[in-house]
Amino acid sequence: MADFAAWSRGIQARMESVLARVLPEAAIAPEKLHAAMRYATLGGGKRIRPMLAFAAGEAVGVDAARVEYAACAVELIHVYSLTHDDLPCMDDDDLRRGKPTCHVQFDEATALLVGDALQSLAFELLASPEACADTATQVAMLALLAKASGSRGMAGGQAVDLAATGKTLELAELEFMHIHKTGALIQAAVLLGGMSGGALAAEARTGLERFAHCVGLAFQVMDDVLDAETDTATLGKTAGKDAAQGKATYLTLMNAKEARIYARELIDDALAAVSIFGPAGQRLSDIARFIIERRY
Amino acid sequence: MADFAAWSRGIQARMESVLARVLPEAAIAPEKLHAAMRYATLGGGKRIRPMLAFAAGEAVGVDAARVEYAACAVELIHVYSLTHDDLPCMDDDDLRRGKPTCHVQFDEATALLVGDALQSLAFELLASPEACADTATQVAMLALLAKASGSRGMAGGQAVDLAATGKTLELAELEFMHIHKTGALIQAAVLLGGMSGGALAAEARTGLERFAHCVGLAFQVMDDVLDAETDTATLGKTAGKDAAQGKATYLTLMNAKEARIYARELIDDALAAVSIFGPAGQRLSDIARFIIERRY
Repeated sequence: MADFAAWSRGIQARMESVLARVLPEAAIAPEKLHAAMRYATLGGGKRIRPMLAFAAGEAVGVDAARVEYAACAVELIHVYSLTHDDLPCMDDDDLRRGKPTCHVQFDEATALLVGDALQSLAFELLASPEACADTATQVAMLALLAKASGSRGMAGGQAVDLAATGKTLELAELEFMHIHKTGALIQAAVLLGGMSGGALAAEARTGLERFAHCVGLAFQVMDDVLDAETDTATLGKTAGKDAAQGKATYLTLMNAKEARIYARELIDDALAAVSIFGPAGQRLSDIARFIIERRY
Repeated sequence: MADFAAWSRGIQARMESVLARVLPEAAIAPEKLHAAMRYATLGGGKRIRPMLAFAAGEAVGVDAARVEYAACAVELIHVYSLTHDDLPCMDDDDLRRGKPTCHVQFDEATALLVGDALQSLAFELLASPEACADTATQVAMLALLAKASGSRGMAGGQAVDLAATGKTLELAELEFMHIHKTGALIQAAVLLGGMSGGALAAEARTGLERFAHCVGLAFQVMDDVLDAETDTATLGKTAGKDAAQGKATYLTLMNAKEARIYARELIDDALAAVSIFGPAGQRLSDIARFIIERRY
């Protein structure tokens, strides 16, 4: 995993540089909005979704320079959702990536517009001429990202999450929520990375979909475990908040040891799914292993 | 204009039916979010942007069934922006289209997600296979809508508007704000309607752009005049609010009579721009005249 650690730091540095380039400069009007968009996006983040996009591109043999567009698009959707999530009317959180949240640093109206504009920018980047090798696939990529972000994807998952606060969910209900809230965008990251090179062969698409489904759930299981077991300073966001807010998590359904075993099973399934790519699927496998071994 | 009145009612009815079909049913999970998306979108609205899209399609000879996608996309972006605009951290408005605003009828978190999900749905619809005759133009349409919606378009205009509250703007600053806040999406409506049939010829594109620029500004001038002169019941939204909130409007720079003259000049310019389309441009001309003659 030493090699993976270097690779992931490389992706993080690359994303920092690419995002700094694609986000409008803070000197361009409206200055405050652009400064806030940069504040919310730059200087942190695990960049898991971009890693997945680059790794999926590698699995099917796409040039990394092309995958950058899909990687930025999914990351911007992710950052927009965090920015809106942190607002007082949602999770009301003050700390994100070790810094004051966007509405604390700026103001609520600005944070609202930051999220709105980051969503638009994600689609703008994915609609760049360089984002895909052929335009028919590119239109399908745009449709996929839109669906994954919307009411039957990420935004819908947020709505289910809000409705579930204070309630006890069964495992099937909890997974329905996560498949939407985080799974849809993780799946988009993987598929868009692969599609950047053009239409995917049926077998490759099926493999990537199964991988993404398992990795998405495992990521959420481990998020719940880490939220309960880790301190705020290490997480860079407020720890223990899910339990305090009465949110449904995996740890309301199983203990931490069981949750880790469940995540392990999901990761084994993910590893099996990408075996079809042979050595080209190595980065995808590395990410799957990282998700179960991460500490924050 | 009797014919135009019937045509515009026809577009309104058509949009009500198409939007009711493309919005997820309220019975589909997450039910509350879907109910709120339908509440915010259906049952009202002048549908000016869809009218512009259909009229531009007619000017360049595109089948109306194809233009429906672009028309829905721009209207959904418009509705999302109204829903977020009405939130307490923005304009804090209780009344829209004669009904309680979305966050009053539901709650703030839901209204936030409604706006987010409507933006995604707009891009999803515009990425439908039927939305354009060729995929290269369709990618350009998606890029155009994204740019018009984002920080250098509509969302950026909102940010300028927020920053300008309580300040006196010069005409050039006011127009910069409006060109972004409402002009960008009006221009997108016109261009996307035309592009639905495939790439536009240079002359047609220039004509539509000039038309859209003039009509967008004239629309805003008349909005300011009507906001100052009309009662809340007729407008269907809170009247006189701009002045009460210290917002910069055309009426802080000129009196109502001068504003009407200015709008008239803009409309004359718009009419000249679409003369290149001959009789096919009739609906665009009708809309331009409607904008200056409307009472609400």
